[in-house]
Amino acid sequence: MDVTKTSDNLRALLAEDKDAEIRDICNSFHPAALADHFEHLEPEERVQVLQCLDPLFRAELIGHLDPNTQLDTVEVMPDAELARTVTNMSADERVDLLKLLPDERVEEVLRTVAKAEREDILRLGAYKEGTAGAIMTSEYVSIPPDITAREALDKLRLEAPNKETIYCAYVVDNKRRLLGLISLKDLIVARGHSLIEDLMTKEAITVLADEPQEEVARKLSQYDLIAIPVVNGNNTLVGIVTFDDVLDVTEAEATTDFHRIGASGSLKESLRDASLGLLYRKRVPWLLILVFINIFSGAAIARYEEVIEAYVALVFFLPLLIDSGGNAGTQSATLMVRALATGDVQLRDWFKLLSREVGVAAAIGLSMAVAVSFLGIYRGGAEIAVVVSSTMIIVVLVGSLIGMSLPFAFTRLKLDPAAASGPLVTSLADIAGVLIYFGIAAWYLDLPLVAAA
Amino acid sequence: MDVTKTSDNLRALLAEDKDAEIRDICNSFHPAALADHFEHLEPEERVQVLQCLDPLFRAELIGHLDPNTQLDTVEVMPDAELARTVTNMSADERVDLLKLLPDERVEEVLRTVAKAEREDILRLGAYKEGTAGAIMTSEYVSIPPDITAREALDKLRLEAPNKETIYCAYVVDNKRRLLGLISLKDLIVARGHSLIEDLMTKEAITVLADEPQEEVARKLSQYDLIAIPVVNGNNTLVGIVTFDDVLDVTEAEATTDFHRIGASGSLKESLRDASLGLLYRKRVPWLLILVFINIFSGAAIARYEEVIEAYVALVFFLPLLIDSGGNAGTQSATLMVRALATGDVQLRDWFKLLSREVGVAAAIGLSMAVAVSFLGIYRGGAEIAVVVSSTMIIVVLVGSLIGMSLPFAFTRLKLDPAAASGPLVTSLADIAGVLIYFGIAAWYLDLPLVAAA
Repeated sequence: MDVTKTSDNLRALLAEDKDAEIRDICNSFHPAALADHFEHLEPEERVQVLQCLDPLFRAELIGHLDPNTQLDTVEVMPDAELARTVTNMSADERVDLLKLLPDERVEEVLRTVAKAEREDILRLGAYKEGTAGAIMTSEYVSIPPDITAREALDKLRLEAPNKETIYCAYVVDNKRRLLGLISLKDLIVARGHSLIEDLMTKEAITVLADEPQEEVARKLSQYDLIAIPVVNGNNTLVGIVTFDDVLDVTEAEATTDFHRIGASGSLKESLRDASLGLLYRKRVPWLLILVFINIFSGAAIARYEEVIEAYVALVFFLPLLIDSGGNAGTQSATLMVRALATGDVQLRDWFKLLSREVGVAAAIGLSMAVAVSFLGIYRGGAEIAVVVSSTMIIVVLVGSLIGMSLPFAFTRLKLDPAAASGPLVTSLADIAGVLIYFGIAAWYLDLPLVAAA
Repeated sequence: MDVTKTSDNLRALLAEDKDAEIRDICNSFHPAALADHFEHLEPEERVQVLQCLDPLFRAELIGHLDPNTQLDTVEVMPDAELARTVTNMSADERVDLLKLLPDERVEEVLRTVAKAEREDILRLGAYKEGTAGAIMTSEYVSIPPDITAREALDKLRLEAPNKETIYCAYVVDNKRRLLGLISLKDLIVARGHSLIEDLMTKEAITVLADEPQEEVARKLSQYDLIAIPVVNGNNTLVGIVTFDDVLDVTEAEATTDFHRIGASGSLKESLRDASLGLLYRKRVPWLLILVFINIFSGAAIARYEEVIEAYVALVFFLPLLIDSGGNAGTQSATLMVRALATGDVQLRDWFKLLSREVGVAAAIGLSMAVAVSFLGIYRGGAEIAVVVSSTMIIVVLVGSLIGMSLPFAFTRLKLDPAAASGPLVTSLADIAGVLIYFGIAAWYLDLPLVAAA
């Protein structure tokens, strides 16, 4: 169905107070699909539509809205209604929602929700952004080790409506220390009177609450888990992270890395809806930094002004040569940044990869040198061709080594390797390129240097 | 445990033929974790170790190896053993494994597996790489609509050991057309005598077998599904794609886009283990193409040789100005490529985003112009400062517009938008930058042009 058509329909029905029809239209959608239509309504209209819906459907719908739409909507929602909605939302989604709101509003809302939920919200909300704790939910099923499979199944059945997943039950002792886990698959296949402690998998794959989200994603993906239990230092179970949240994290992390490698700040919001001011703030800082780095290329050129005056034809090859170094470096950097992000490559692999990079870059540089040598002869004669070709080999080599090493250096310095962006590598390769090019030219063509810039 | 230590242990035990101890060591690992250790053994050693393991554990272990290790291993494995292994592997993983092997070997192996499995392998293997069909599995549970919840549960219990997931059962008619689905959660909560057709969700979210994998990932992620049913044009159920495969696809797609935006060919293998020759082949083509594009920057410079001879100081600002255009363009391109890949931005959004881009780029260009104007005055006086600053505004604007438009143009031409890489945008922005810079300089400083390059 057309997106604007549905929102227009809803708007028309709102004007006529046809609550039942609004509910019918909404119920004909999956909440995740209705969320797309919802974004085309004004915040006040959204609140009115929400009032027509069943509480659970309403909570699920709000959970599927993107953060900006969530914020716009709950800002115009009365406190009492927000509290009711929060109560019905899943434990991890409501924490994400409340994090968008100012502290006073959160306090106001929390005052009216039940004590157990309030404590749960505060506990989950306390974990640092980017950690396992920040994406986990407290809605899992835990069972003691000394009950039977049949009793465990009964408990799962009873708790099913309120849990994020019942496809895995976590076995804990009376201090909530994680002893093991059992999948619903194993439970329904097992004999009813078998004890959980005999059936459970004892060596559960876990993550610590303060481990980074990338690590959660890596483990869940490596072991093909529906959910991964989160424990604290004492092996006490504090929550689980489900596969759907990991999918979101994986996508968000890749997006952040993309933005960084493109030398812009990470944009958490939708690019389509981002404001001009936001984009300006995210993009301008790195560009200004790069301007200052590029001044060194200029300084390098100033050093060789007399070489340029003697052979203006050399300028012809300048963009070609410095870009080639930058391009080869960008390739290396991008390959490395991604390999470091996925865990394919580790810090300790640097030296091994360095020697291979020298080989690859030398081969690439040689191929490109051959390609430009003809152009060199045609434009400037044999002497220029020699200068241009030998420069090409060296700039590609140097650019590649800068590109491959920078992500490692950043990782070592505990910076995000993705900040070793294409433009940064290009700018550094440019400075090296100018020095190498005019240095070789001055030496080979036997020209004097200017004393200083 | 240390990775090399485990592989050394296994190697020592192999020499002494201690099969039972080898099995014990291996069984102490999750197959996914053992896979990491396995890569440190020689192919022949791997086959020897595999012979000590239980058939199911062996099949699962092979499924967790990366494609290169899989290939090395099965290449030295006898046909009969490979056939046994294939029989025990999951339906989608064995197809992926067999696709690595030459056709004759596959025929040899298929000859010895049971007819039903052979047909299943051929059917799944027929779907085009990159489609839903290529990642789906045939191991799902299907049930008729006219049985009770209890009967459905019994069927799930019975089929559990051989199915990829039993957490969702697919309801089909006698022609295997998909009527709906029911989750195991709903099944165990339901009354035992209720009919499936009354319990099932009728509006199942599905994908077509020839839809691209990105679309599968997007739907599964949007609707938080454990698995998504794959149908053909007649709504006949042909398979399911499970969340773990979608996680792998999401990661692989992001990696491909990363490599493309870095202007190298997509590398499916591990970067750590990639050979020098492979890296050369993946990286050199784009670099050579870019060399030829960069020649146009040279040609543009040649056109302005007299301007340069008159004002050598202009060369000082050349890398700075052309890089700034390239950097702003790379930012735009990277933001757009990612937004198009995640579905945040669509082809039809181009015009709306274009007008915003003009605003953002003008603001960024202005900021950068202010930054370089001081340098211009210092290095070349007021006249040069005017030329450099006004050039900066225009190159940033032009670079940004090239960067934001190229991914859309590529999408429109049914090319991968990620091929609108940073280096390509940089090279195009360079040509524009040279023309704008020297064009403004010649006009403002009132200098003659060379007639032709």
